[in-house]
Amino acid sequence: MTHAMPERNRDLHGSVPETSPVALLLIDVINDLEFDGADALLEYAVPMANRIAALKRRAKRAGIPAIYANDNFGRWKSDFRLVVRHCLDDGVRGEPIARILKPDDDDYFVLKPKHSAFYATTLDVLLKYLGTATVIVTGIAGNICVLFSANDAYMRDYNLVVPRDCVASNSEEENTHALEQMQRVLKADIGPSESLDLDRLLSPAPTGAVVRGG
Amino acid sequence: MTHAMPERNRDLHGSVPETSPVALLLIDVINDLEFDGADALLEYAVPMANRIAALKRRAKRAGIPAIYANDNFGRWKSDFRLVVRHCLDDGVRGEPIARILKPDDDDYFVLKPKHSAFYATTLDVLLKYLGTATVIVTGIAGNICVLFSANDAYMRDYNLVVPRDCVASNSEEENTHALEQMQRVLKADIGPSESLDLDRLLSPAPTGAVVRGG
Amino acid sequence: MTHAMPERNRDLHGSVPETSPVALLLIDVINDLEFDGADALLEYAVPMANRIAALKRRAKRAGIPAIYANDNFGRWKSDFRLVVRHCLDDGVRGEPIARILKPDDDDYFVLKPKHSAFYATTLDVLLKYLGTATVIVTGIAGNICVLFSANDAYMRDYNLVVPRDCVASNSEEENTHALEQMQRVLKADIGPSESLDLDRLLSPAPTGAVVRGG
Amino acid sequence: MTHAMPERNRDLHGSVPETSPVALLLIDVINDLEFDGADALLEYAVPMANRIAALKRRAKRAGIPAIYANDNFGRWKSDFRLVVRHCLDDGVRGEPIARILKPDDDDYFVLKPKHSAFYATTLDVLLKYLGTATVIVTGIAGNICVLFSANDAYMRDYNLVVPRDCVASNSEEENTHALEQMQRVLKADIGPSESLDLDRLLSPAPTGAVVRGG
Repeated sequence: MTHAMPERNRDLHGSVPETSPVALLLIDVINDLEFDGADALLEYAVPMANRIAALKRRAKRAGIPAIYANDNFGRWKSDFRLVVRHCLDDGVRGEPIARILKPDDDDYFVLKPKHSAFYATTLDVLLKYLGTATVIVTGIAGNICVLFSANDAYMRDYNLVVPRDCVASNSEEENTHALEQMQRVLKADIGPSESLDLDRLLSPAPTGAVVRGG
Repeated sequence: MTHAMPERNRDLHGSVPETSPVALLLIDVINDLEFDGADALLEYAVPMANRIAALKRRAKRAGIPAIYANDNFGRWKSDFRLVVRHCLDDGVRGEPIARILKPDDDDYFVLKPKHSAFYATTLDVLLKYLGTATVIVTGIAGNICVLFSANDAYMRDYNLVVPRDCVASNSEEENTHALEQMQRVLKADIGPSESLDLDRLLSPAPTGAVVRGG
Repeated sequence: MTHAMPERNRDLHGSVPETSPVALLLIDVINDLEFDGADALLEYAVPMANRIAALKRRAKRAGIPAIYANDNFGRWKSDFRLVVRHCLDDGVRGEPIARILKPDDDDYFVLKPKHSAFYATTLDVLLKYLGTATVIVTGIAGNICVLFSANDAYMRDYNLVVPRDCVASNSEEENTHALEQMQRVLKADIGPSESLDLDRLLSPAPTGAVVRGG
Repeated sequence: MTHAMPERNRDLHGSVPETSPVALLLIDVINDLEFDGADALLEYAVPMANRIAALKRRAKRAGIPAIYANDNFGRWKSDFRLVVRHCLDDGVRGEPIARILKPDDDDYFVLKPKHSAFYATTLDVLLKYLGTATVIVTGIAGNICVLFSANDAYMRDYNLVVPRDCVASNSEEENTHALEQMQRVLKADIGPSESLDLDRLLSPAPTGAVVRGG
């Protein structure tokens, strides 16, 4: 399941200038949350955002790139910056989360039109050019866009880590069911983010098995 | 081959607020042209850009949306605005074309990682939400990204119009071969842009056949 | 979201000689069930198969086509007939289900390499040529291949009916969770098969809403 | 661009029991040729078929698998065997080619609904499970299905070999243009089949470059 990268496209016009066996995916965290039922979600999403931010800092130090896979708000313009500005400046409910998880200049952004981060997007090509085998999936909602994206990652043979404290849903029950589904069916590691051993995850394990500290 | 649009997703969070049976596609016109052999292309591309600009003005008046499908330059950030700025401000060879075809606020943008505008992008979903049946394909290079995109549009059963004066390649010979290929194999209308009757193209012809003035 | 069907491809070389706004999908029912834990599944799957068979008979009378979307067993040969023979003749655990749901000559078959019936298959093209807007999803396992396929149908804007007595999983708990997920997130109608009013489902409802008898 | 193959799916239920860095693709060679203009094609297609058959024998000896990517004729049943029988038994124009290139039991078959062997098919998944980096593309028509498939292989970063004597089109001119296009744009090796050095193609060249004898 490997094939040589032709010289000509090594970095897609500089779009993918690095490689990493592990990538951190942040799903729909830049979100105005201006829909019914978002209040319940917000309660869980703020602590989640703080934990994702801590994990993202550790990931960056370990050389693991962060990829925002996000809904578009407003006319389709492939302009994620506009989506970020909307969530920071327009007084929307999702502002605190956007503030905690404001993208850095060296993050990747993928706009998605539907629930799965893989459907009708560039994500799979991006991950292939990164040489990524293991995806750490985080974000909202755990039982919708996170679950759809995790399903699609699993079908494409990526190893999955879904830290249980880095996803949020409308209710704890829905969140727990989604995590159990990802653990049981998708073989995802759903342990808490703090105990995730990124260095061991990055090391070339023969089986691609997820390893944890402690 | 029609299916009802569920209420919930009618406009993809406002991303696709309109419908149109015809769409104008501009392929890789925002391009720094900083590669070998681009000088030859530039000679053909400037007059092409002027003709596309005129066609785009007519299309806008007729209610036909314009969609830029474009390579990304620089780290993948779903930020077409950055690509436009690079081509306008950095003294690159493609600047004159970018200046002539500078996007408007009501244009759509789709970033593509590879040659075809349909591969690993949101274009097909966007066209479906627009209700588009006929795609007018323009841009560069006629025998590469334009041809790949036209092939993919044809396989997805879109009717094709490729105005012969709105595509440019490295050489006239390559451009002519590509146009002949699109006419013969893809059943594309390759007549010149000026004689294209947009109003008749927009009218609900029973067969979807392309119609021309004169 | 409609576009004209070009004359030339109206039926894909005769592959899709009819149209229907509704299609019945049977997922992985032709299955040898020769894997760990299949015994539990089998207990639920036999009554499920009888209910699917009854629904399929009603669907056929109403002009609704049946599409088998099925895993391949043995070397990839696009040979569903071989898969059927294997399940009928080789003394496998899945034989009773295969016997109850043996395909007819006028059924469609789609071989899938992974969990979702839409991933890397012809299903979406087939449904488009059928003109299908509503998919009735049945089969095994409810929380795996059925759920993955339903997710993908939802993202592609198909209306979903998942009769609760026509899907089976390893445990009742997993089956119930999957059905609730499809009802809540995918807006699927999960009422029992017997009360499903196929004639009303076929009638051109302005909203595409699912309607039930009683 | 490599990622570990999870143990669980190593061979897709036995569908892909082997690996090979090179695969031989036969496009639409099992074809009834019952369409206008097929007589011209037939004249070129019979000698082409003999050369493909010779190449296929050499490929088999070298451990290179053959994959038939073929249109479906008749109702969509994922039943390539039926397509083969139709071309052998029904007195169709394509019979001589089908006879020369009758599939063996250890060949792979992929049914395609449209022109490209990659569009809405399992081919890409199959090639990934085979671990294939280089695809030898052969078949008909050189300027349609072969060209579309080669384009798609190129976009997916496969190295391409298109032996010039193993493709046929309606006219020599169209065939030559298509081959030139594949050589120039897709960087395909279009040398004749006899001089293709399969052993060197199979050896792990650092650059993936195609190598030829003589």
